[in-house]
Amino acid sequence: MKIAQIAPLWETVPPTTYGGTELVVSRLTEELVRRGHDVTLFASGDSQTLARLEAGSPRALRLDKSIKEPVMYELLHASEVYKHAEEFDIIHSHVGVWSLALASMVSTPTVHTLHGTFTRDNNKVFRQHHTQPYISISDSQRLLNINYVATVYNGISVELFPFYEKAQEPPYLAFLGRFSPEKGPQHAIAIAKETGWRLKMAGKVDVVDKEFFDKEIAPHIDGKQIEFLGEMNHQQKAELLGNASATLFPITWSEPFGLVMVESMVVGTPVIAMNMGSVSEVIANGVSGYVCQSYEEMAKMIPKALQLSRHKCREHVENKFSVKHMVDGYEAVYEKIVGERNFRNWFNTALRSSLESITSFTR
Amino acid sequence: MKIAQIAPLWETVPPTTYGGTELVVSRLTEELVRRGHDVTLFASGDSQTLARLEAGSPRALRLDKSIKEPVMYELLHASEVYKHAEEFDIIHSHVGVWSLALASMVSTPTVHTLHGTFTRDNNKVFRQHHTQPYISISDSQRLLNINYVATVYNGISVELFPFYEKAQEPPYLAFLGRFSPEKGPQHAIAIAKETGWRLKMAGKVDVVDKEFFDKEIAPHIDGKQIEFLGEMNHQQKAELLGNASATLFPITWSEPFGLVMVESMVVGTPVIAMNMGSVSEVIANGVSGYVCQSYEEMAKMIPKALQLSRHKCREHVENKFSVKHMVDGYEAVYEKIVGERNFRNWFNTALRSSLESITSFTR
Repeated sequence: MKIAQIAPLWETVPPTTYGGTELVVSRLTEELVRRGHDVTLFASGDSQTLARLEAGSPRALRLDKSIKEPVMYELLHASEVYKHAEEFDIIHSHVGVWSLALASMVSTPTVHTLHGTFTRDNNKVFRQHHTQPYISISDSQRLLNINYVATVYNGISVELFPFYEKAQEPPYLAFLGRFSPEKGPQHAIAIAKETGWRLKMAGKVDVVDKEFFDKEIAPHIDGKQIEFLGEMNHQQKAELLGNASATLFPITWSEPFGLVMVESMVVGTPVIAMNMGSVSEVIANGVSGYVCQSYEEMAKMIPKALQLSRHKCREHVENKFSVKHMVDGYEAVYEKIVGERNFRNWFNTALRSSLESITSFTR
Repeated sequence: MKIAQIAPLWETVPPTTYGGTELVVSRLTEELVRRGHDVTLFASGDSQTLARLEAGSPRALRLDKSIKEPVMYELLHASEVYKHAEEFDIIHSHVGVWSLALASMVSTPTVHTLHGTFTRDNNKVFRQHHTQPYISISDSQRLLNINYVATVYNGISVELFPFYEKAQEPPYLAFLGRFSPEKGPQHAIAIAKETGWRLKMAGKVDVVDKEFFDKEIAPHIDGKQIEFLGEMNHQQKAELLGNASATLFPITWSEPFGLVMVESMVVGTPVIAMNMGSVSEVIANGVSGYVCQSYEEMAKMIPKALQLSRHKCREHVENKFSVKHMVDGYEAVYEKIVGERNFRNWFNTALRSSLESITSFTR
């Protein structure tokens, strides 16, 4: 199949540090190439791929300080893809609103994976193009009345994560994620203090979250019970999560997927999470962690989480959140949509030629 | 002719205070309706027009504080127009980059008036769509290698401006415009101080220009020789300019049009301007003002400007920058482009039927 992938330009594909969407696009693209598809990746020019790379910008926009109007590159990027639309059987967009208007103008079908969240303003653009085929990354993400054709969970490269047979002594809880109110680091601290557990926290602090961090997080960091370890690379993340007794995921918003839960389970560590967004789809409750209705319940479930099988945690990821599963899911969507399009084309041609026969007969 | 006009959503059409582009779109749209065209205006929902109004947003974006992501409305707006492209003979876009990709996907032609300036980032989008037909608002604005089909100067409603037979006593110079370094208010002050002339200044101070204003302008305002009068409505602007002996236009950048020069000349006041951007096209040098090569030359030309005929200043606007001239210019472009398209369609149809005759003959 001839497939175009449209990646965001903000980070390279794959990303050097953060960039959940770019990581998913990379895993998907490389696996599609391995499966024999003819794939063109529209991404920043400093991306690395086995596919044909078409550069939407010379470098990832986040790294190019000379760029003042990033939206100009979003426009360039989408337009470049659709100029070549006829060369593909299917276009897979990971850029949300930027490809929608153009997708509705060409005969090559586009599928759109929704990686982000709906906002007061962007939801109007999705609703304007509600007949386009959308893929949600969890069922919980289906908050708009638009044409969802499948849910395909994000997949990780299981083989890149070591398995941690048992938690480190002395034991601790882990928190990994952006330090923003939505991710709930303040609740992780409260749970640790209430139960007396040690807590190791890591992740980035965005500029917009600086005040939140300074006020609600920093005063609690003592380097003993509550540790803050800053940003981490892949290896460090696996260690932090793998050595933990349990990972806390005390979110306060509707997380559309929550990759950290999967990264924790794959290294063997159960996740205790607040039941919002995708949580109940990602955790096998009572097997790979606990889905809780309150932050108090999260605190209470820590002793029970320690009893869970770390092997079962990893197995759960292997069975549901591997790159193989993700790519199987996307391939099935491509085949369905291209199949429907081919059938429509065949049907229209057949109908036309039948009508022509009848017309010539009765002429 | 069935014409779609795409206006920016930032201000209403016409604008309540500032908004040069929205004012031009309004004058053009109303006159096209009066000339019998079937016009649809895509603009903010609180716009006023004789044409059919299609709302791209309920209210002008500048006035709607609840909007966090204005680009979403730019996307919605452009997409809504091109969904209906087949209903028009021609689409006239005043929104720059936002309509370009879509314009290149439909058979209905679009003409794009370039109201703004090219930036390091946006010029890439124009170059990507270099074959689209562009209209410059001055010849000096043609800085990119793209398909310019005409220059159409902005036109004003001459009848809405009173004529001031002679300047007020005691005499003064006028400066009207945004208080930003590009508009050169600092040079206006220097010229006034050097020559001993009084200077009355008016215009808005944008947030980004606050520091410039506080440092370079405010210390010179004494309310006697140098007066600052703040933002002004139409009536106040006409008075400020009309009572002046001359208007200073000491720009430091390539102004694409410079409406203030026209507003000054129409009320009878000559303009002394720095020769950058459109200046030499807008001022009839030695008739309606002076086009100077330096700020020193501007100071020297003040006595000569006092000798110019104020009637000739107004006549120059009547002959070159009226709404009638502007609409004549745009109508000519529409006719040329629609004519070419009709010819292409006719030619293709004729060619196809000739080929079919030949084929059937030799079968």
